[in-house]
Amino acid sequence: MKLKYKDLLGIEQLNRAEITGILDQAAGFRQVLDRPIPVVPALRGKTIVNLFFEPSTRTSTSFALAAKRLSADSVAFSLSASSVSKGETLLDTARTIEAMRIDGVVIRHSMAGAPHFLAQRLKAFVVNAGDGCHEHPTQGLLDTFTIRERLGRIEGLKVLIVGDIAHSRVARSDILAFRKLGAKVFLCAPPTLLPADADALGCPVFYRLDHILQEVDVVNVLRLQLERQERGLLPSLREYRQFYGLTRERVAQAKPGLVVMHPGPMNRGVEIDAEVADGPQSVILDQVHNGVAVRMAVLYQLAGGDDGAGQ
Amino acid sequence: MKLKYKDLLGIEQLNRAEITGILDQAAGFRQVLDRPIPVVPALRGKTIVNLFFEPSTRTSTSFALAAKRLSADSVAFSLSASSVSKGETLLDTARTIEAMRIDGVVIRHSMAGAPHFLAQRLKAFVVNAGDGCHEHPTQGLLDTFTIRERLGRIEGLKVLIVGDIAHSRVARSDILAFRKLGAKVFLCAPPTLLPADADALGCPVFYRLDHILQEVDVVNVLRLQLERQERGLLPSLREYRQFYGLTRERVAQAKPGLVVMHPGPMNRGVEIDAEVADGPQSVILDQVHNGVAVRMAVLYQLAGGDDGAGQ
Amino acid sequence: MKLKYKDLLGIEQLNRAEITGILDQAAGFRQVLDRPIPVVPALRGKTIVNLFFEPSTRTSTSFALAAKRLSADSVAFSLSASSVSKGETLLDTARTIEAMRIDGVVIRHSMAGAPHFLAQRLKAFVVNAGDGCHEHPTQGLLDTFTIRERLGRIEGLKVLIVGDIAHSRVARSDILAFRKLGAKVFLCAPPTLLPADADALGCPVFYRLDHILQEVDVVNVLRLQLERQERGLLPSLREYRQFYGLTRERVAQAKPGLVVMHPGPMNRGVEIDAEVADGPQSVILDQVHNGVAVRMAVLYQLAGGDDGAGQ
Repeated sequence: MKLKYKDLLGIEQLNRAEITGILDQAAGFRQVLDRPIPVVPALRGKTIVNLFFEPSTRTSTSFALAAKRLSADSVAFSLSASSVSKGETLLDTARTIEAMRIDGVVIRHSMAGAPHFLAQRLKAFVVNAGDGCHEHPTQGLLDTFTIRERLGRIEGLKVLIVGDIAHSRVARSDILAFRKLGAKVFLCAPPTLLPADADALGCPVFYRLDHILQEVDVVNVLRLQLERQERGLLPSLREYRQFYGLTRERVAQAKPGLVVMHPGPMNRGVEIDAEVADGPQSVILDQVHNGVAVRMAVLYQLAGGDDGAGQ
Repeated sequence: MKLKYKDLLGIEQLNRAEITGILDQAAGFRQVLDRPIPVVPALRGKTIVNLFFEPSTRTSTSFALAAKRLSADSVAFSLSASSVSKGETLLDTARTIEAMRIDGVVIRHSMAGAPHFLAQRLKAFVVNAGDGCHEHPTQGLLDTFTIRERLGRIEGLKVLIVGDIAHSRVARSDILAFRKLGAKVFLCAPPTLLPADADALGCPVFYRLDHILQEVDVVNVLRLQLERQERGLLPSLREYRQFYGLTRERVAQAKPGLVVMHPGPMNRGVEIDAEVADGPQSVILDQVHNGVAVRMAVLYQLAGGDDGAGQ
Repeated sequence: MKLKYKDLLGIEQLNRAEITGILDQAAGFRQVLDRPIPVVPALRGKTIVNLFFEPSTRTSTSFALAAKRLSADSVAFSLSASSVSKGETLLDTARTIEAMRIDGVVIRHSMAGAPHFLAQRLKAFVVNAGDGCHEHPTQGLLDTFTIRERLGRIEGLKVLIVGDIAHSRVARSDILAFRKLGAKVFLCAPPTLLPADADALGCPVFYRLDHILQEVDVVNVLRLQLERQERGLLPSLREYRQFYGLTRERVAQAKPGLVVMHPGPMNRGVEIDAEVADGPQSVILDQVHNGVAVRMAVLYQLAGGDDGAGQ
């Protein structure tokens, strides 16, 4: 099935069937990536712009590779944040892009809602590659894809998200994606790193990691922005690790089949131990690999590629 | 017809027939851009370098897209301004590029004459994408192309350029291009933003916008560099808008068919009102779109593409 | 013959036959570069990442062009130095790249050994494009290639390297490459710019340029990092030129067929006179041109291209 939307702005807009449709398409593209020449002509002649107002090597490279694998032209339209400090300029940027007959825009912006702002004003499709503390939908898709591949299903799983929930667009997209596919999601964080309206997220909240970790099938460890400590939200990194770090000892006491996720880049020794990150229960590198396939699926569905040419 | 020059350094070097030849070729490429796969194999195997010593997202993206549409390889050779502060280093840069067997160089530089310096020393063709306050010839070409398309002709039109004429390479290239094609060009600016030798430009000069605006067919509003105010060349942005801004009120009193241009990026509410920029008389986004076609024509003619393969 | 290694980390790892094999392959690719469409399909479907942690326009452009000429996809994974200040992060970068199914990594890093660190941890091949003061093997290869082309052989030649030997990865790779191919290498530098273990390099050392210059067939003039003077390693640039500069006068007294090399970028008037750099004995631009062919050969051999498709 095809997405019926022009844009992918958040998991919020998608229903279960639409998410499943993207994951199924991504599964096909994963097979393409294993071929000797991992390229399909699906989006030949299409031009996609990477519009990153925040630095992000891994996400922008993942989208650029996804476009290349689909034979699309990928252009980096790198604007410094300063030149778009005024919303008005973002509007003109959008219109300039439109005028160059670009088919799609992948945007990352520190301002929640920036992709929506563009989407309303462009005929080109828009993919949100992370907007402020709001959503990062392709991360939600690749995380569910990775778990579905590893455990065969999402329905009925218990998924725990640990860390800086308050400032995490990954957490927000993951909560939505996992819940829409039938998982139960739990949150664990110090009170200072929980959003004021944590209840509205619809997930049970825990302030200690030890007990709840033993109940879940999947744990997603968020990156700790180290500058949070400077702002006084954390007592110390050592104490954070003591209470919330996914240590080897904690994993040893969890369910045997526990699956460990992290969106990267990791602070090894802070929110996650190196042995855990590199251990057999970790799917962290699968997340990266699957990211390219999931982004291929999203670009393909939004660019209106012909199903026959798709693979 | 083909350009008989190795380089495009300024409108100054072109005669009427040569300008018309480029615009005609660009008209053909505009049709290519409307195809589902907007690519021609004309410059396959050619390598063009984008050598931008000043940041310019829109012009560099426009040239990069033009090269892609012609199947040329486009390489960004991004040197920081500091590494070329000495003319000697620019010379070695030129020779290094030459040695890598690059076919053409698109250069933007803060120093007037830098493209000419390279052009004399390279076998590769050179396109001036803006040199100091001197020329920006592809802007002059795309502006005349856009007006010719909108009004069917240039000959006999009255064109007004408003704003910082003294520091504008756009103004200089536009004056030359419109006049060579038979238009009459008028200038309007505060005395502090007019060049000392304004008379030498051969255009009547006005210090007030109100009267002359009612006489013209086309008005080209230049971007106001906001730092001019800090240097004491402007009393205040508010006063600038009051005397020189293309406000809705002023446009209402102009000829009904007045065409409004702006090279972008705009300071909405300063030199132009948002309603005017987005109104039916504005061709600002056409300028952006036509820019790709015009740059395709320039690259194609300089790279010596075969006419048969061109489209 | 093919390289039997996964990676090219230094000239140190190569024997004479392996070096000659690369140079012979490069000679074939040089002919490709002279074709109207200088592209071979040898590495179609391969993806190569340029991972430059130090700015280097000419080397990164040379590698990017080499990849394009081989029909490989080239992706710039530009990480700021700050984001990899911890070795642990470089490890995760390596694994992230691996997970995106990238075939090869070209890395430049200020830390000697960084390419080796990656090479041990990646299945992808790794090319060292310069690591700290350690090695820059493709420079060593292109320098020997250029001399072999100019003089028909390396065996038995006398090669002098002048300048900042202590901090030069170019010097180190050149010493190894020229000596492995049977040349005799001499070094000339002020004592402050010689490594503490200069004897271990196995080359006679001279503190004055005048006499030894008359004995040699080739002189390779290293770039003087002007900041060395600030650190007190040099009395003055004028004095450096007086004792170690390759001036017109010195070249006039050297062997008639002396060949002059410089890895660029040059400080004209400091370590080399403009007349010498641009004179008939200089192969400086040949070095740049040959660099693309040599890098094609290295990428091709490491990527395991099929010999039939190679040219």
